[in-house]
Amino acid sequence: MARDGAARAGILQTAHGEVETPIFMPVGTAATVKAMTADAVRSTGARIVLGNTYHLMLRPGAERVAALGGLHRLMDWPGPILTDSGGFQVMSLGKLRTLDEQGVTFRSHLDGTQYRLTPERSVEIQHLLESTITMVLDECTAFPATHAQAESSMALSMRWAARCKAAFCERDGYALFGIVQGGVFADLRARSCAALTEIGFDGYAVGGLAVGEGQAAMFETLEVTIPHLPQDRPRYLMGVGTPDDLLGGVLRGVDMFDCVMPTRAGRTGRAYTSRGVLNMRNARHAQDRAPVDAGCACPACTKHSRAYLHHLFRCDEMLGPMLLTWHNLAYYASLMRGMRAAIRSGLLVDFAGEIRAGWASG
Amino acid sequence: MARDGAARAGILQTAHGEVETPIFMPVGTAATVKAMTADAVRSTGARIVLGNTYHLMLRPGAERVAALGGLHRLMDWPGPILTDSGGFQVMSLGKLRTLDEQGVTFRSHLDGTQYRLTPERSVEIQHLLESTITMVLDECTAFPATHAQAESSMALSMRWAARCKAAFCERDGYALFGIVQGGVFADLRARSCAALTEIGFDGYAVGGLAVGEGQAAMFETLEVTIPHLPQDRPRYLMGVGTPDDLLGGVLRGVDMFDCVMPTRAGRTGRAYTSRGVLNMRNARHAQDRAPVDAGCACPACTKHSRAYLHHLFRCDEMLGPMLLTWHNLAYYASLMRGMRAAIRSGLLVDFAGEIRAGWASG
Repeated sequence: MARDGAARAGILQTAHGEVETPIFMPVGTAATVKAMTADAVRSTGARIVLGNTYHLMLRPGAERVAALGGLHRLMDWPGPILTDSGGFQVMSLGKLRTLDEQGVTFRSHLDGTQYRLTPERSVEIQHLLESTITMVLDECTAFPATHAQAESSMALSMRWAARCKAAFCERDGYALFGIVQGGVFADLRARSCAALTEIGFDGYAVGGLAVGEGQAAMFETLEVTIPHLPQDRPRYLMGVGTPDDLLGGVLRGVDMFDCVMPTRAGRTGRAYTSRGVLNMRNARHAQDRAPVDAGCACPACTKHSRAYLHHLFRCDEMLGPMLLTWHNLAYYASLMRGMRAAIRSGLLVDFAGEIRAGWASG
Repeated sequence: MARDGAARAGILQTAHGEVETPIFMPVGTAATVKAMTADAVRSTGARIVLGNTYHLMLRPGAERVAALGGLHRLMDWPGPILTDSGGFQVMSLGKLRTLDEQGVTFRSHLDGTQYRLTPERSVEIQHLLESTITMVLDECTAFPATHAQAESSMALSMRWAARCKAAFCERDGYALFGIVQGGVFADLRARSCAALTEIGFDGYAVGGLAVGEGQAAMFETLEVTIPHLPQDRPRYLMGVGTPDDLLGGVLRGVDMFDCVMPTRAGRTGRAYTSRGVLNMRNARHAQDRAPVDAGCACPACTKHSRAYLHHLFRCDEMLGPMLLTWHNLAYYASLMRGMRAAIRSGLLVDFAGEIRAGWASG
């Protein structure tokens, strides 16, 4: 593993292949990265994708995915897949769910059918999905929360983490990650890290961030959390983020990220580029023969103009979301590739400065 | 050119490359074959696509397409493009348009802006689009129509065809096609063929069919029309059709087809296969590990199961329409490829029988 300040560049060895870190994982919620074929996702440079247990347990159902040969085969992604535990989406259901010590009962947002999710069932579902990296079921602490609320919520997550560890079927190349909680409170984060390390996991995620606390508080929380995690295990910042969040996360020692931002933004006409964010719906692109991002190797940039992208979004043509999702994922992958190279050269701070200068120049 | 009964197999030489006929042309209405990248369209075996003058003159506008380097460059399709004249869509506007001897005035279905389309302007627009094959502006005779209505409408189309010929700028490898009208009346079709042949075109389309007359009447009309067309020019049956329509059209001497059917059906979950039509939304596919069509080389069939396609459509995931459009275009291209080979072997009737038996067995 190469180190550059707090940042690290390494390789995850999994049953489904190697992944160079730091890495961004595109989100494939319902067994598809929206608007992308699996071939297209691979061509962006992505090497690991995320699946959502909540969505997959509702449709097509974990047992059905297993009967169909597992998630990799279903979605044509033989590479590594990380699945979340379902907890984050279930906690977001509000009145549709009730939490108790043993787990959470909820009604599907689709048809009201009642489901029960426990630490054991979440691990079982992820096993049925054939997940490469299983996440523990946790309670994502709401923001804002008092110290007492965050403490109680974190403690529950730690008890659930131990149950997930007990339920997890260990196999070579398959991993179980714990999730640090504790809100924005340094003492709680440290205690959560200690509790998880005591249980022992293959990797450690930082959860409960990017939920409204803002980038500064997120970075501060990372800085009081990451030093308490083992040096020799991957660290995953869940649900993050913008390109600038990725830079800041890697600089603070994060190895893995996932976020719907590049895919969701691509569907609504927003392009992440080396010169900052562009909205392709803007009329100023209507006659622009330049590519979305001159240095980018994706098909949106090598084969088409901003004017064409603008036209596609103006006409609500599916090819607009398809091409811009492709571009955004290619941009994210290229940013991570640049960070990995910079870390190996010991030049990450310089690299981050150049990247930020590019965004500011747009 | 190879012949097999009335059917022919040949090669169209154009400024943008060669096209083996008989051929099906995917419809790329607004400078995109819906839900497909240009690379994906090419990979299906398609070699020529259709653009719609009506849609392109409204958005992004013919002059803008020209300023952006032409339609081929805009949509990443360096191969041949056939454009319709705009007439069919304008005539469909009903109360939004008024027809006179000189042309047609209409209001955009998007924002009510008034436009004027004449034979000369239609040819000019298609020139601005850099169209490989330009179609004359015609009045697509409504169905049903009396003999007198069809005669008067056909006569107007013939006067417009002569004006289009006069307005067309001849260049090597670029073509202007006339359009036969005359409803379902054999005498009018014969007179229309004579009028167009007298003017002289690079190819001849049969228009005014697939507008509600039914397959039997369509085939009968083809049989009384095609013998009046020159043997040495391509024949194009506009807006047709189902796979069975293509078989019947080729058997009667048609060389070119276009239709939204494979793309539109793909977006709504309908798959054309060697065993007939499948609706992927149907619950019977939910656990089916078989591919959509076992013999098909498209990514939907080689990489995924019917169960996955069913899941994608059930979840309204864009990948469903993307994959099934891909499959349907691959199926259409493969059907045409099979017909070309059969014609060259003198076995088209046998081939048609086998194909129909396959559909019936599903």
